[in-house]
Amino acid sequence: MCELLGMSANVPTDIRFSFAGLARRGGETGPHADGWGIGFYEGRGCRTFHDPEPSARSDLARLLRAYPIKSRIVVAHVRRANRGRVALENTHPFGRELWGRPWSFAHNGQLAGVKRLPLGRHRPIGTTDSEHAFCWLLGELEARWSALPSPRRLDAALPALFRRLGDLGVFNALLSDGRTLYAHCGKHLSVVTRRAPFGRATLLDEDLQVDFAAETTPNDVVSVVATRPLTRDEEWRELVPGETLALRAGEVATLPGSARAAALTKNQG
Amino acid sequence: MCELLGMSANVPTDIRFSFAGLARRGGETGPHADGWGIGFYEGRGCRTFHDPEPSARSDLARLLRAYPIKSRIVVAHVRRANRGRVALENTHPFGRELWGRPWSFAHNGQLAGVKRLPLGRHRPIGTTDSEHAFCWLLGELEARWSALPSPRRLDAALPALFRRLGDLGVFNALLSDGRTLYAHCGKHLSVVTRRAPFGRATLLDEDLQVDFAAETTPNDVVSVVATRPLTRDEEWRELVPGETLALRAGEVATLPGSARAAALTKNQG
Repeated sequence: MCELLGMSANVPTDIRFSFAGLARRGGETGPHADGWGIGFYEGRGCRTFHDPEPSARSDLARLLRAYPIKSRIVVAHVRRANRGRVALENTHPFGRELWGRPWSFAHNGQLAGVKRLPLGRHRPIGTTDSEHAFCWLLGELEARWSALPSPRRLDAALPALFRRLGDLGVFNALLSDGRTLYAHCGKHLSVVTRRAPFGRATLLDEDLQVDFAAETTPNDVVSVVATRPLTRDEEWRELVPGETLALRAGEVATLPGSARAAALTKNQG
Repeated sequence: MCELLGMSANVPTDIRFSFAGLARRGGETGPHADGWGIGFYEGRGCRTFHDPEPSARSDLARLLRAYPIKSRIVVAHVRRANRGRVALENTHPFGRELWGRPWSFAHNGQLAGVKRLPLGRHRPIGTTDSEHAFCWLLGELEARWSALPSPRRLDAALPALFRRLGDLGVFNALLSDGRTLYAHCGKHLSVVTRRAPFGRATLLDEDLQVDFAAETTPNDVVSVVATRPLTRDEEWRELVPGETLALRAGEVATLPGSARAAALTKNQG
């Protein structure tokens, strides 16, 4: 198991508070000591930092905790290796260009037989199941469209692709094209949305508190997705296994075709 | 104009000394204040740092100067924007996966009409001529081979492709697939090889000296390519316009089909 952290916001937002909690789980409060990585979307670009060192002891992670990169979409991961040795090329998030956009992907879980899924033009650099799954996903998307589809079309296509991966084992994952952050719950994933009136939050993994009211403006909307809740004084919602979220500008929507959407429709009917 | 820095070594080597000189040219001793980037190959992976801030004033550049990443191949760049606005996505080195390898590319110069060159599957994320040239190069390579060719085959193909770009203007460039560092001189590029007996070197741009004898073992071979020599007490060789180098494990070879090779052959004949 690894831990995931994703963020979507309507204004460039500093992820350092949440990242501090995640980084501690990489070898200190958690066993995920086999590397970590974080990608920040900025404009059309994406800046990614990877380190095969445990995040709790990584010089680079310490530097990033002191370095205010503001972003609207963040994809981060701390790794506990199960398939694929501890090495830079096996460190999430993985990145690839498709249709002139930088795509990012991070995953936790195990996927039996994923390497039998046929690939398009994107090929793994490392040896993880996760990177193979990412390359397969991009190949499936590229087989459907020759140019960047609208967010709405991607929203419609991704839940079924995620379900196919989920059928192979545990598939908790984050995927972004720089417009939308997609989050899929295979087993464990929680989400929280912060908006006015902002309160205080305290990290579960570190004696660190933040007063969001002092850090934000009243119009800010920021959502954070994580394998396990990162704070103790906020209301995190646990996703239903099979549920896919689309996060845009901080707003969270459960996608049709994913598990919770089916349950919600049923309850309405 | 921008400035390039490349390194090839037979053992993982710390680039910080040379990077310190380059970083100063990004807005202090040089006018290249429109961002910078550096890629380090480690195993099969490549770790890349990008920053649209001037390197001389960049927090991230200061952090990297304190952070000993050891690598066999490094590709670095400080930028002075001429085409493409100052933005993360326009910051070199550009990276793409091809045949399961992370490729890196950095360029200085201007290429008239390069955007008319047809692209394969790799598409620019930003708006620079350089990224378009990189995507075109990868498309040309992919049209020739369906799987990773040997270094020898790439050595044979690249000089002609570089010449086609050179015909469009000034093309000083670094390209790597993680096995070889290719360096092409359009106008200005210099190279130095450090091997036993190692001496001292002093940066031209900063009052910083290094005693390589204390930092290396007798078997180390390290070559550095840069737009302009970085040190004052070493013998840098200026490349001939049109010359392409292949650097592997610190050893430098001028490729057949490139300008100096033709001159050398002529002199022998």
